[in-house]
Amino acid sequence: MTTDEMSAVLERMGRKAKQAAETLAVLAGDVKRAGLEHMADALLAQKEKILSANKLDLENAVKEGISPAMLDRLTLTDARFAAMADGLRIVAAQNDPVGKVLDHRVRPNGLDITKISVPFGVIGIIYESRPNVTADASGICLKAGNAVILRGGREAFNSNMAIAETLNSSAVEAGLPDGAVQFIPWSCREAVSIMLKMDKYIDLVIPRGGEGLIRAVTSQATMPVLKHYKGVCHLFVDAKCDFDSALDVIVNAKCQRPSACNALETLLIHKDAAAEFAPRFAEVMRKNKVTLYADEAFRKLVPDALPATEEDYFAEYLDLKLAVRIVDDVKTAVDHINFYGSRHSDGILSEIPENIAYFTGRVDSSTVYVNASTRFTDGGEFGMGAEIGISTDKLHARGPMGADELTSYKYIVRGNGQIRK
Amino acid sequence: MTTDEMSAVLERMGRKAKQAAETLAVLAGDVKRAGLEHMADALLAQKEKILSANKLDLENAVKEGISPAMLDRLTLTDARFAAMADGLRIVAAQNDPVGKVLDHRVRPNGLDITKISVPFGVIGIIYESRPNVTADASGICLKAGNAVILRGGREAFNSNMAIAETLNSSAVEAGLPDGAVQFIPWSCREAVSIMLKMDKYIDLVIPRGGEGLIRAVTSQATMPVLKHYKGVCHLFVDAKCDFDSALDVIVNAKCQRPSACNALETLLIHKDAAAEFAPRFAEVMRKNKVTLYADEAFRKLVPDALPATEEDYFAEYLDLKLAVRIVDDVKTAVDHINFYGSRHSDGILSEIPENIAYFTGRVDSSTVYVNASTRFTDGGEFGMGAEIGISTDKLHARGPMGADELTSYKYIVRGNGQIRK
Repeated sequence: MTTDEMSAVLERMGRKAKQAAETLAVLAGDVKRAGLEHMADALLAQKEKILSANKLDLENAVKEGISPAMLDRLTLTDARFAAMADGLRIVAAQNDPVGKVLDHRVRPNGLDITKISVPFGVIGIIYESRPNVTADASGICLKAGNAVILRGGREAFNSNMAIAETLNSSAVEAGLPDGAVQFIPWSCREAVSIMLKMDKYIDLVIPRGGEGLIRAVTSQATMPVLKHYKGVCHLFVDAKCDFDSALDVIVNAKCQRPSACNALETLLIHKDAAAEFAPRFAEVMRKNKVTLYADEAFRKLVPDALPATEEDYFAEYLDLKLAVRIVDDVKTAVDHINFYGSRHSDGILSEIPENIAYFTGRVDSSTVYVNASTRFTDGGEFGMGAEIGISTDKLHARGPMGADELTSYKYIVRGNGQIRK
Repeated sequence: MTTDEMSAVLERMGRKAKQAAETLAVLAGDVKRAGLEHMADALLAQKEKILSANKLDLENAVKEGISPAMLDRLTLTDARFAAMADGLRIVAAQNDPVGKVLDHRVRPNGLDITKISVPFGVIGIIYESRPNVTADASGICLKAGNAVILRGGREAFNSNMAIAETLNSSAVEAGLPDGAVQFIPWSCREAVSIMLKMDKYIDLVIPRGGEGLIRAVTSQATMPVLKHYKGVCHLFVDAKCDFDSALDVIVNAKCQRPSACNALETLLIHKDAAAEFAPRFAEVMRKNKVTLYADEAFRKLVPDALPATEEDYFAEYLDLKLAVRIVDDVKTAVDHINFYGSRHSDGILSEIPENIAYFTGRVDSSTVYVNASTRFTDGGEFGMGAEIGISTDKLHARGPMGADELTSYKYIVRGNGQIRK
């Protein structure tokens, strides 16, 4: 296949998606709901077909000597089918994010102005190895009236194609337009490069994966990108706080799932709490096999902690490692977080109202916690239903993004012949 | 001045803006209001000083043989001082866009989640020759709690510096942080290039000017850009509509201010209306000295219209020129608008409810009009007060952007030791 041929096919996909999006934009909420439910049924009904595609991917992966962790991510199981179908049903049951009246005003000249939520149009999703993303991402995009063009990882190519075909054909059966769900039928990099220049057809791209993927997408894309870079999350133990509760929160934030983007990466401790808190904290971390990288002041209290470098404070370990620093006051803690952090999720553990107010007002992060674990930054935990990711951008959407965040708006202005003076 | 020295100064400006932004974010609405009012007073009080800076710019411009239109834009008059001061006072009087509770929910585990509007942080504004933008843009950014770094056109350099200094020092007198308003003290292109890489300090850039400026900024900037490309605005005369009213609306949309981005550029006429409407319309356009570029079908009815090319349908004339096409139905009209248009402002002139619904549902533009002139797409006309521009993007802000559109949001999550299971 030459580049020109690939471009021509992608252009046709783009045009088809755009047409589908125009129809999706005006579909009644009930139709979208029934469509998503039918897609969930179809995934389960087509399980055998999808599993045989998955088997092909698994055989290829084994031949290529893929790691056991990657192989696990790639494997579709009954539980994962159930999770995909449940995900679609949960999204189906949510309120329609489209057509919401966001503002309404009648001007002195009689013009009636309604600000109404509308879909973006066509959303491109670029993701790595988990085939369940094909269903999860399609569901959320469709719920918000968007057509979706998917591009998944090479390893899951056959699984993704089978899932996407099932989703699109079942969507059509339920009255959604053909082209609502399309999957790019090549796993080469060139196809992504072509896709990322198709701003005529694709209104928004969301990359899901590691920082390398996200930076590559952002640097190439000519359309807007909603992104999640990393989670360098902090907790600050204030001069006065419930130490027992603080320890529980810290263990949860660091250890419950260290590979998550909302896991704790740096602990800041107020100097007045350090003498009592540091040894207790160090003991709990030892029990949980967490390696500490700390500043001099902390290492005077806990000599077996390793010395921290500047890089440790910028690090997203995603591992049982934790950077630690003793700070003079809440101001220093906030300065540290705004300088080294990634604007994801940061919290204060405190019983001092002024310090809590200072911290929540000044920390420039998508989610700011008071006396709770950073691990709650998640669409499900926030009660949004499914999420398509967590944005570390400040433009448009911040924090967990559900179907509501995949809408734009427009103004509809009704008059009876008004002209501007 | 070497590039390194310039970078160092710009870096200091960025750091200062970031610090100012942190304080601005938590300022009470009353303080911002009083600050903006004091800035308005100061502009009038410092009029002589600013006028002598303006005189310098005008003398340079005359030496360089600037066009009369450009010279007019550059000239500060009593009326323009009054308009700048009034603009600041109007923004001052608006409700505080920061600290609004956008959503609030208490989760089953007791976590209390508040979604609250917050400033972006630091906004960079890059604009061309009108010095009044210095005051207008600063006012809107500050109202929304943002620090601003301004970069104006070379021609207005001295005027802009004098206005920005007055604004910043009067803001400080009123209790706002130093660095809330800063102006880049060089007019070379290199300074802009350095500025556009400062994503560490500048959260958002808004270019104001021609398409060339906007494309240059977008291609260089490493931070998000909110932009207005162009306004290729349409009206569609449906099979059944009030022709007298339609003619008034068309004349207003095309002729009242042809250089505006919300002026009419293409008229679409339903084939069933054409025989009666086209000659009457052509007569009115002749009277208003508007040159028509039309398709064959229209030229059969109005032989003196010039033939339209494909480029005419993409054109933003900003002049007394109008592209015209006869279409088969509302569907063809919508397809034309979504293909050739710029997603700015488009309208239907109709008395057929189904067609109105089809048009408002399917036209993918920031503002969709029913029986009114496209010229109303404007922050003031929408009742938003001042505007910083009109966005043709779909991400974050669409259509006229006021102070509300210059905010982001964050989640504040309050608990009493919650951990994730």
